Amino acid sequence: MINTLIKNIQEKNAPIVVGLDPMMNYIPEHIKKAAFEEYGETLKGAAEAIWVYNKGIIDATYDLIPAVKPQIAMYEQFGIEGLMAFHKTCAYAKEKGLVVIGDIKRGDIGSTSAAYAVGHLGRVEVGSKRYAGFDEDFVTVNPYLGTDGVKPFLDVCKEENKGIFVLVKTSNPSSGEFQDKLVDGRPLYELVAEKVVEWGNECMGDTYSNVGCVVGATYPEMGKVLRKLMPKTYILVPGYGAQGGKAEDLVHYFNDDGLGAIVNSSRGIIAAYKQEKYASFGEASYAEASRQAVVDMIEDINGALGK
Amino acid sequence: MINTLIKNIQEKNAPIVVGLDPMMNYIPEHIKKAAFEEYGETLKGAAEAIWVYNKGIIDATYDLIPAVKPQIAMYEQFGIEGLMAFHKTCAYAKEKGLVVIGDIKRGDIGSTSAAYAVGHLGRVEVGSKRYAGFDEDFVTVNPYLGTDGVKPFLDVCKEENKGIFVLVKTSNPSSGEFQDKLVDGRPLYELVAEKVVEWGNECMGDTYSNVGCVVGATYPEMGKVLRKLMPKTYILVPGYGAQGGKAEDLVHYFNDDGLGAIVNSSRGIIAAYKQEKYASFGEASYAEASRQAVVDMIEDINGALGK
Repeated sequence: MINTLIKNIQEKNAPIVVGLDPMMNYIPEHIKKAAFEEYGETLKGAAEAIWVYNKGIIDATYDLIPAVKPQIAMYEQFGIEGLMAFHKTCAYAKEKGLVVIGDIKRGDIGSTSAAYAVGHLGRVEVGSKRYAGFDEDFVTVNPYLGTDGVKPFLDVCKEENKGIFVLVKTSNPSSGEFQDKLVDGRPLYELVAEKVVEWGNECMGDTYSNVGCVVGATYPEMGKVLRKLMPKTYILVPGYGAQGGKAEDLVHYFNDDGLGAIVNSSRGIIAAYKQEKYASFGEASYAEASRQAVVDMIEDINGALGK
Repeated sequence: MINTLIKNIQEKNAPIVVGLDPMMNYIPEHIKKAAFEEYGETLKGAAEAIWVYNKGIIDATYDLIPAVKPQIAMYEQFGIEGLMAFHKTCAYAKEKGLVVIGDIKRGDIGSTSAAYAVGHLGRVEVGSKRYAGFDEDFVTVNPYLGTDGVKPFLDVCKEENKGIFVLVKTSNPSSGEFQDKLVDGRPLYELVAEKVVEWGNECMGDTYSNVGCVVGATYPEMGKVLRKLMPKTYILVPGYGAQGGKAEDLVHYFNDDGLGAIVNSSRGIIAAYKQEKYASFGEASYAEASRQAVVDMIEDINGALGK
């Protein structure tokens, strides 16, 4: 699957991913109104609004971007109905040729991790049949439980040609509380990074591994070190834009081949119409505002990369 | 909510929780057959089988136990239909007076963690209305992202009188890879434990905090140290039985008041009929076998506690 992601990135010359993290207050009023008129102010109404909103953004941007990253929490908060919108969004994005990175940050042990892996990347057995539950292409994985928690994902990745991104250093202010703690003089995230390399060797694509990692854009100095520690690991980089990460900082996350990183923006793209810069599009044209924000983000990052 | 959990434990004199982690191969053939006849070998058929199986176990044990702990991964692997069975199981257990601990091991940052908290413990806003998505009483939380990831859960716990159990030291063999790493001479899990105390102080019940933690039964020496470090923290203890944890080891997880820990058993209870010890019940009476296994587990643990 990493080969497909890289192919998409190269064809579109766009090392970016759009985070489909819909918040109710991002969704234009006309979409909410229509959904609530049809289903009432219910979980189903909210899910319908999310789906229509997402579809608009996918339709307006799919030709420019290699991938989307729906954040499952934003759907899960609306219960079953929300998760149906998540599933529909993933399926639609795949139909449009996009790689789908499910930002699920799951992680457990043994048979439990296997269940998550099967449900999100593989197919579950029911009697003599097999079914895909959510069917993303990649998912994000939390490493706190160690190899037992990650290994079942690797097994499914190999069987189904899928991939994962393991949290190494997250973009949030308090990520340092545990991740930065020094173990024999080295931060914990570097130990996690070494494990990511080990896990990744089991799951290689052509030039990069199907086991990628997450390193926040907000810690460029650490990104620089981690880039060198994990030469064949794709880095999923959250924290660009709204969280404060700048294009010039992101250069460190890429290898000399111009590959090795994919930068996420969520709010900055999907709620672009709320920014002063894109306000002229108006709420009704929120998707066109998102498209323009994608164009600008690609230019910003490629510019910093000297492309 | 910790007050309710303690009340239930005391009334039933049973510091245990039944892990509702249904695997298809635990479910008796007659239940699968009926479900597949009705819905085919489909995700819906699997979900129906899980639900009927769970209901049987709840009906046969609810008067003996204070709580259940459904492991969401085992449902999520069957996609939307599986999650509907999870939701139904949680609601039914609550109807029967049980405290529901959703073993979801979520953890993210800021608004994303807030979305998980709202979806599982709180109520989400839809226009002028508010709805509970999954509505568990407690959930398990992964601490790798630090305070930013946990804080939103605390906010919802305070508002809704709910609780969480934060992973400190998990029961699996490779839990030591990161959790045991020494930071200034002390294992990382102790640092996490200190944060749990800090978070817990914000969310106190009468004698214990609504912020509990998870410490595996398979590491009793660590359990002993952690018990002292976190005197007001309830410990959810996985790993008893099938994973190798013994009752005499569990004594260390309790305080002198006889409280402070709740021991989980999943397979050992829900698939009891598959053990030689309970084989005489037969597959058709799987739920009665589970009841007997509950009786034996309570006796085993209370015996070790000298109760």
